[in-house]
Amino acid sequence: MRTQVGIVGAGPAGLLLGHLLHLAGIESVVLENRSRTHVEERIRAGLLEQGTVEVLTEAGVAERLHREAMVHEGLELRFDGQSHRIPLTGLTGKRVTIYGQQEVVKDLIAVRLGAGAPLLFEVDRVALHDLETDAPSISFVHEGIAQRLHCDVIAGCDGFHGICRDSIPAGVLRAYERVYPFAWLGILAAAPPASHELIYARHERGFALATMRSPTLSRLYIQCRPEEDLTQWSDDRIWAELHARLAHRDHGSPVKEGPILQRGVTTMRSFVVEPMRFGRLFLAGDAAHIVPPTGAKGMNLAIADIRVLAQALEAFYRGRGTALLEAYSGRALARVWKAQRFSWWMTSLLHRFDGDDLFEHKLRLAELDYVCNSAAGAMTLAENYVGLPLAPG
Amino acid sequence: MRTQVGIVGAGPAGLLLGHLLHLAGIESVVLENRSRTHVEERIRAGLLEQGTVEVLTEAGVAERLHREAMVHEGLELRFDGQSHRIPLTGLTGKRVTIYGQQEVVKDLIAVRLGAGAPLLFEVDRVALHDLETDAPSISFVHEGIAQRLHCDVIAGCDGFHGICRDSIPAGVLRAYERVYPFAWLGILAAAPPASHELIYARHERGFALATMRSPTLSRLYIQCRPEEDLTQWSDDRIWAELHARLAHRDHGSPVKEGPILQRGVTTMRSFVVEPMRFGRLFLAGDAAHIVPPTGAKGMNLAIADIRVLAQALEAFYRGRGTALLEAYSGRALARVWKAQRFSWWMTSLLHRFDGDDLFEHKLRLAELDYVCNSAAGAMTLAENYVGLPLAPG
Repeated sequence: MRTQVGIVGAGPAGLLLGHLLHLAGIESVVLENRSRTHVEERIRAGLLEQGTVEVLTEAGVAERLHREAMVHEGLELRFDGQSHRIPLTGLTGKRVTIYGQQEVVKDLIAVRLGAGAPLLFEVDRVALHDLETDAPSISFVHEGIAQRLHCDVIAGCDGFHGICRDSIPAGVLRAYERVYPFAWLGILAAAPPASHELIYARHERGFALATMRSPTLSRLYIQCRPEEDLTQWSDDRIWAELHARLAHRDHGSPVKEGPILQRGVTTMRSFVVEPMRFGRLFLAGDAAHIVPPTGAKGMNLAIADIRVLAQALEAFYRGRGTALLEAYSGRALARVWKAQRFSWWMTSLLHRFDGDDLFEHKLRLAELDYVCNSAAGAMTLAENYVGLPLAPG
Repeated sequence: MRTQVGIVGAGPAGLLLGHLLHLAGIESVVLENRSRTHVEERIRAGLLEQGTVEVLTEAGVAERLHREAMVHEGLELRFDGQSHRIPLTGLTGKRVTIYGQQEVVKDLIAVRLGAGAPLLFEVDRVALHDLETDAPSISFVHEGIAQRLHCDVIAGCDGFHGICRDSIPAGVLRAYERVYPFAWLGILAAAPPASHELIYARHERGFALATMRSPTLSRLYIQCRPEEDLTQWSDDRIWAELHARLAHRDHGSPVKEGPILQRGVTTMRSFVVEPMRFGRLFLAGDAAHIVPPTGAKGMNLAIADIRVLAQALEAFYRGRGTALLEAYSGRALARVWKAQRFSWWMTSLLHRFDGDDLFEHKLRLAELDYVCNSAAGAMTLAENYVGLPLAPG
């Protein structure tokens, strides 16, 4: 079996890359170790930067997105029991879009299968070979049959726990990591959103976030311990905690209760490897970097990586050489570190750390006050939240 | 002995308060436990916000300042061996002024003594009494004679190590504190400045700062340990460290050597007490709050406190009651916390912490990159550095 670009992973990064290459007339094969149902139903992030929406729109895969998504022009910060709106669009001219990652995945799978382009689910025992040559390959088992995919280039889009990053010899990558001493307990509830925009709360009991998937489906989070035992959290306890942390001093809790459809604990990590490339293997998205979910940068970073990588591959196949492929890691990382900084900052600003002293708490309130009451301070939140410009083309 | 306002401490805060009260026709006595020579020669900060210069100008004590001071319209950030200028005036319309704190003190002493207003040096055994009554008093010994100063109000302007804050009963004040795990080794050298503006450097060996007192007098600092032993630092070692940390990748070190006239170690602390008042005692400046020297907010905060306090006292003596005196602590603290946040942020951004991992170092470089390359990021540094507006009148 032979193709031009072998893509490992059918998340947003791998699928979008496959589609952009298809549009450019470049062949690819996408290999995914989970089932189609699994990747289409796996609940992940749900906030798209305007630049992400633009990439999807230009790629022709945003028709349903534009029909169904909710568009937001601001967000709310809540601390000291008071409410402060950051007018994202007023400050930056840009909007953010609420549309689940799994919906993006569904749209990209549909367009790929519709085009008859190869996308294999439930592949097993994936291994990469000859990465330092011009003829790398991927071995795998599919439907019981061992196969080998020969290609020019491999895109490692298989996430933080994938096999691509680990296929790079020891000593090549430098890893930067921060594990946070807390996690998010998240629920999906059949209830209207707490507000028409997102509410991010800093409370002495810890962080809370009220977001949504649709006008009838809420997504709510509370800061918890990384080893939190979900069996200790009755529905009543979850709702009580959400009400307490998201309450407004004068207007009470905006949270609306409803049946809890899903619940889970998300751990928090900052992680980057440099470079994002080894020979003919190019890492993209979570395979190369993880951000804590505060600020919702994960999928947006993956899409930005892919935009840079797709341009580089197109140049390569148009006979313009390997200069853009050589530049990929540096260009992607420039944006990655900006998003890492922002995600770390927003996480630090809004969470309670166990060792925090009174000075730290007052500092954070002063920082929130500054963000809410200085035009420049508000802009530093807004311009990063809606997304810094994609790397220049 | 009787006056209207008893002022403890002849630093910039106490002396300016005495002068502003004098201009308003309100009597005061200033008590200082050190000699005139000592307070006039004690080297402290030397960067005045534009608002500070305006207060001194309006008070008629800035004639020599305007003749001798150096006015700056920007500063330089140096990291990764490269140089980035923050155009303070271009961004904010405001300037900063280089003029030593001891020069401000000299000017204020001269104007007070010229007006024949009471200013006693080398007073001893100062103690405060009856702070919770309308008739507080200060007992002290001056030239061997025990005296008592009866007044309406006492201003505690005697610095971090002064006696005023400690005269408040236990349990009244809430203290917020952060002690940093490093200090500054500072020198005063008979050498031209490294540059016409200040250079703040983040280097893997630690922070460095090149500033100045005049076109022939440099003030230079390097991050060191709090317990640093100055006898271990030969002149050569100090210069070598300054050259290494302040060097530009292409142009080498801008530091110019000369005879070292003074050297010392400055420890770093963030400290605030709330409220800044107990009965008829009002704390101002370092008596109530300390910032680390990064960003040079110490004296500027003291001047801002005094402006608020002088207004309140004027209203009180004009028969407009105690409302502004009641509001003093809250108004002053609102500005204090903004400056605390900024000083902590600039300190964290530029210093090396022993426990720092690679991720932290990359984060700080990403933050410096953001500050230098985003208009909003640059503005958050500039608007705080030149000074946020004084509390509304």
